[in-house]
Amino acid sequence: MTKKVIIVGGVAGGATAAARLRRISEEIDIILVERGEYISFANCGLPYYVGETIKDRNKLLVQTVEGMSERFNLDIRNLSEVENIDPEEKTVTIKNLQTGEVYKETYDKLLLSPGARPIVPPIPGLDENQALFTLRNVPDTDRIKNYVDTQKPEKAVVIGGGFIGIEMAENLVDRGIEVTIIQMANQIMAPIDFEMASILHKHLKEKGVNLILENSVQAFADQGKQVILLDGTEIQTDMTILSIGVRPENELAKTAGLELGERGGIIVNDYLQTSNQDIYAVGDAVEVVDYINGKKAMIPLAGPANRQGRIAANNIMGKNEKYQGTLGTSIAKVFDLTVAATGNNEKTLKRLGVAYEVVHIHPSSHAGYYPGAAPIALKLIFDKETGKIFGAQAVGADGVDKRMDVIATAIKGNLTVEDLTNLELSYAPPYSSAKDPVNMAGYVATNIMLGDLEQIQWHEVDQVVADGGLLIDVREPKERENGYIPGSINISLNDLRENLDEIPKDQTVYVSCQVGLRGYLASRILKNNGFDVKNVDGGWKTYSSVYGVN
Amino acid sequence: MTKKVIIVGGVAGGATAAARLRRISEEIDIILVERGEYISFANCGLPYYVGETIKDRNKLLVQTVEGMSERFNLDIRNLSEVENIDPEEKTVTIKNLQTGEVYKETYDKLLLSPGARPIVPPIPGLDENQALFTLRNVPDTDRIKNYVDTQKPEKAVVIGGGFIGIEMAENLVDRGIEVTIIQMANQIMAPIDFEMASILHKHLKEKGVNLILENSVQAFADQGKQVILLDGTEIQTDMTILSIGVRPENELAKTAGLELGERGGIIVNDYLQTSNQDIYAVGDAVEVVDYINGKKAMIPLAGPANRQGRIAANNIMGKNEKYQGTLGTSIAKVFDLTVAATGNNEKTLKRLGVAYEVVHIHPSSHAGYYPGAAPIALKLIFDKETGKIFGAQAVGADGVDKRMDVIATAIKGNLTVEDLTNLELSYAPPYSSAKDPVNMAGYVATNIMLGDLEQIQWHEVDQVVADGGLLIDVREPKERENGYIPGSINISLNDLRENLDEIPKDQTVYVSCQVGLRGYLASRILKNNGFDVKNVDGGWKTYSSVYGVN
Ligand SMILES: Cc1cc2nc3c(=O)[nH]c(=O)nc-3n(C[C@H](O)[C@H](O)[C@H](O)COP(=O)(O)OP(=O)(O)OC[C@H]3O[C@@H](n4cnc5c(N)ncnc54)[C@H](O)[C@@H]3O)c2cc1C
Ligand SMILES: Cc1cc2nc3c(=O)[nH]c(=O)nc-3n(C[C@H](O)[C@H](O)[C@H](O)COP(=O)(O)OP(=O)(O)OC[C@H]3O[C@@H](n4cnc5c(N)ncnc54)[C@H](O)[C@@H]3O)c2cc1C
Ligand SMILES: CC(C)(COP(=O)(O)OP(=O)(O)OC[C@H]1O[C@@H](n2cnc3c(N)ncnc32)[C@H](O)[C@@H]1OP(=O)(O)O)[C@@H](O)C(=O)NCCC(=O)NCCS
Ligand SMILES: CC(C)(COP(=O)(O)OP(=O)(O)OC[C@H]1O[C@@H](n2cnc3c(N)ncnc32)[C@H](O)[C@@H]1OP(=O)(O)O)[C@@H](O)C(=O)NCCC(=O)NCCS
Repeated sequence: MTKKVIIVGGVAGGATAAARLRRISEEIDIILVERGEYISFANCGLPYYVGETIKDRNKLLVQTVEGMSERFNLDIRNLSEVENIDPEEKTVTIKNLQTGEVYKETYDKLLLSPGARPIVPPIPGLDENQALFTLRNVPDTDRIKNYVDTQKPEKAVVIGGGFIGIEMAENLVDRGIEVTIIQMANQIMAPIDFEMASILHKHLKEKGVNLILENSVQAFADQGKQVILLDGTEIQTDMTILSIGVRPENELAKTAGLELGERGGIIVNDYLQTSNQDIYAVGDAVEVVDYINGKKAMIPLAGPANRQGRIAANNIMGKNEKYQGTLGTSIAKVFDLTVAATGNNEKTLKRLGVAYEVVHIHPSSHAGYYPGAAPIALKLIFDKETGKIFGAQAVGADGVDKRMDVIATAIKGNLTVEDLTNLELSYAPPYSSAKDPVNMAGYVATNIMLGDLEQIQWHEVDQVVADGGLLIDVREPKERENGYIPGSINISLNDLRENLDEIPKDQTVYVSCQVGLRGYLASRILKNNGFDVKNVDGGWKTYSSVYGVN
Repeated sequence: MTKKVIIVGGVAGGATAAARLRRISEEIDIILVERGEYISFANCGLPYYVGETIKDRNKLLVQTVEGMSERFNLDIRNLSEVENIDPEEKTVTIKNLQTGEVYKETYDKLLLSPGARPIVPPIPGLDENQALFTLRNVPDTDRIKNYVDTQKPEKAVVIGGGFIGIEMAENLVDRGIEVTIIQMANQIMAPIDFEMASILHKHLKEKGVNLILENSVQAFADQGKQVILLDGTEIQTDMTILSIGVRPENELAKTAGLELGERGGIIVNDYLQTSNQDIYAVGDAVEVVDYINGKKAMIPLAGPANRQGRIAANNIMGKNEKYQGTLGTSIAKVFDLTVAATGNNEKTLKRLGVAYEVVHIHPSSHAGYYPGAAPIALKLIFDKETGKIFGAQAVGADGVDKRMDVIATAIKGNLTVEDLTNLELSYAPPYSSAKDPVNMAGYVATNIMLGDLEQIQWHEVDQVVADGGLLIDVREPKERENGYIPGSINISLNDLRENLDEIPKDQTVYVSCQVGLRGYLASRILKNNGFDVKNVDGGWKTYSSVYGVN
């Protein structure tokens, strides 16, 4: 029987597990060991405290050591580090970081929720950099905020265009700082695909951020005042944020002989048990199963960490709850836009060799006639044969989170793209349209499954035109003034029926419009008149988000 | 084979069907007959044009007769009424309302989407009322707006507290008018339950609306300047909106001998076919199957009308698509709040004798430490034995639509309340919490299923106390200054463990707090110490939303 549980790490996974353990039993001893001063803090809020959107530092501390000890009758030992695990003896060695005292503590069950730490590569000049920061916890935040408050930097470089990098960029801009983001890949925000990220690239530039893609840092010079890029570019800066990703805090697990995965994550079974049955592990430190493709993955997010903490607590107390894997639903605010994703993206499916189909639509967040509606770029990725939803991505100023959550829920309910058309979502003009964007994505995807709509993608169209394909832009002539796909000819949708004679029947005809809808209507007219026709998915809007306005 | 389709009604269901029919075939003749001047207008936007949130009247016209005729090659006959159907002959009689001409038109398939009309009961003085309005279409809206613009009424009475009544009340207030709502039931907004509506009652009063419940209009006097209520109250007004509900436009169907349901709705099968196989019907005029309880229902909403229009078009063209029934997800803006619901409410389940359990929670729309978070009152109704979700309701200033849509999707995916805990919803501080409100509702409901949480409802607690039950308020003493449940004693959660000796073990102990969370924590402590304990669901917040602050 479990009588004494030791938890390593007192934030998302650890604190949640501690609270849940106590709710299950009043009898067990629960020792929560945390290296830092603070437990249960709001990691996800940290960038916004730097940017002063969150003004009160205390708000970052969701629970205090005192408060949580009292409420949950916990033995919380902060500023204490677990240095070693002896799985044979079932003891841990703890170092009191204030006194230096080192002592052993026995356990019946041990739970590891040590999180992850920012990756810091051995960049030349790094040690001499006087203004280099990473961001993981409250002290990191204090350091950055203090630097900004007192040193009043004018320029900052953010290395890495992931969630934390982008959030930091925005918050530094909010402090009046000129920000340059340096990103090694050709896009920011890895969970989404390139054409979706392109919308963000444009937005960042509009907000004055200097975005440098496909480049990386070769060295720091002048005590960090100079950042030298791989291609030789030299950037002057007053501070640098290094946010190129995290790696699991796996040292304890490694030395204890627990199995680790390829990417260094602690391996756990469905019950979140490590290779030692008395040791559980959760959160950023563990390898999870990707809910869509069943492969191993590292997905460092707060929701999964919290959920896993509760499940591990249940299992420690003898329940038998399985963790279902991680879907990876994620979201970020990027200035005036929101970007969100769920499930697998094209890049992942391509890598795994999975056949998939995608649709891009650009619906309004709510009825266009009611003020405040904003377009959403919504991408749905699915299996053309079965209708299974592989994933979705969205970017827009309003209503993005809702649509992503609906699709994430649909995935968990095993709904197909056709089922999306039958979702009954709440509609009044301030909130949606009678056909919600998610319904609409479902319609388009279903039409593809049924063969009623054939399409080509933004990245295929230039080649089609180069190869002599006939591309008809069915928008109104006036709309073309704002840009069009090179090589397209113009026959507006309303003139199409009268001009069928001019269109060749012996070759595939391609149509495009602003967002894809009129192209679809044109394709129906043409198909029903015996033409072989394909629509440019997402229309000019998706195409131009990548290639810009010509 | 279908060669000629006539559609009666050119708005939500009818226009959608026409567009879809044309997308399926370029060959058939499609005649769209509409009594009014306008087709394809935004019914749902009408109140906001009166209130001038929507400023441009043209925005209400989603499609024009010309635009739609051209694009979809339709024969649109507006200002034309179908007066009669001869199902034997397969003809309809159409009257041109401009010329008075009456003629016959044959059809292969007929689609009825005639909608519904506002109920106007024979109230004495109604015919003499010079300023009585109902709202269904553009001319109605023009009449109301013109009256407000030119007559500058100071006072208005809205009869009926449903969606349209409440939206009109808000929009008239926006025009500076003093509004009184008269509602026969003890609550407004029938899709939600009383305690949830109570939050809206309070909000309406805060916004200066005079809300009169459990009363109705006996007569109008003084050409409508006086409204006399059942209890004798006399109200002076400059205008009156009558919005007590709609009834199906079923006259055509009735005289054609089509089967009608008890409530007058046209009866259709799963394929939206009426009792005559060549006549289909959709929208507000038809009786649907309630998705949750399988009973017949009238659910006049735009989403279902649009969806049905598309399905009927498919079936007319020989596809075999079933309509899955209507879940009834609905939403409305009520000044600064949003109210939404999906599935069945308690009232319905009670009427049907279905056993159910409910939970009320009051989470934040997003992380409390990020600005702009607002509480959501969220109610989940489910089957305690199977975890099946029967319905949900929510009221709040932010994030209500999202949670309702997620739950509506979960219902369509046959997810249980336990599955709600495993939904992976998008989390960053501006959008949600690591455990989203929907996850949280799932946790609480699952705890009830497992017996880990027992509770009583807001309407039971007074009786419990009156019968001598011990009710412990586990909030801090200071919180009680803002009100508490009469008869409760106070032992704050953090003091509970030290005061267990004072609590009797031979009777059920009741606990309550602000929202239910600390009550749950207290109940766990007590249960694990051998007490029999029940928590007041939703805490003081749910209780006081009904009983007010004492
Ligand atoms: C700036 C920032 C923004 C973020 N924003 C989001 C967001 O918007 N949405 C989202 O879903 N996720 C976000 N995340 C990620 C999220 O915070 C993590 O996924 C989550 O906190 C992981 O929980 P965990 O318990 O595994 O690790 P943590 O919460 O990091 O907790 C691990 C704790 O263990 C302690 N520890 C480690 N080793 C030892 C040891 N040997 N002895 C004692 N203590 C030890 C550490 O000091 C640390 O406090 C963000 C993270 C950061 C840093
Ligand atoms: C003010 C208002 C606000 C609303 N707000 C919302 C909302 O926020 N969300 C929501 O989901 N729903 C809302 N609705 C309801 C929604 O508009 C209806 O459910 C939907 O329009 C029903 O579609 P329908 O095709 O059945 O009927 P309608 O859209 O009403 O179309 C029926 C048409 O048929 C015509 N017609 C009838 N008989 C004949 C005949 N014999 N010959 C020729 N023509 C005929 C009528 O003139 C009418 O134009 C609102 C309705 C109103 C009036
Ligand atoms: C603060 C913290 C310790 C709270 O953990 P917790 O007690 O498990 O979580 P909550 O306070 O949200 O309460 C959830 C519990 O209350 C119950 N509950 C919530 N609302 C309730 C209500 N209205 N009525 C009854 N029960 C309720 C839930 O069922 C759940 O209990 P269970 O797990 O036993 O089923 C933990 O979430 C934490 O450390 N958070 C900050 C760190 C972090 O997550 N960082 C990353 C994100 S920024
Ligand atoms: C305006 C109206 C006639 C449009 O009907 P519609 O053409 O069926 O609807 P939409 O314009 O939204 O287009 C939907 C079609 O375009 C397709 N589509 C939408 N976006 C697309 C895109 N980006 N790429 C390809 N196809 C797309 C959909 O698949 C669907 O086609 P399908 O039904 O053949 O599958 C009808 O909705 C209407 O009358 N509305 C106003 C009345 C009303 O609804 N009132 C109540 C609410 S206020």
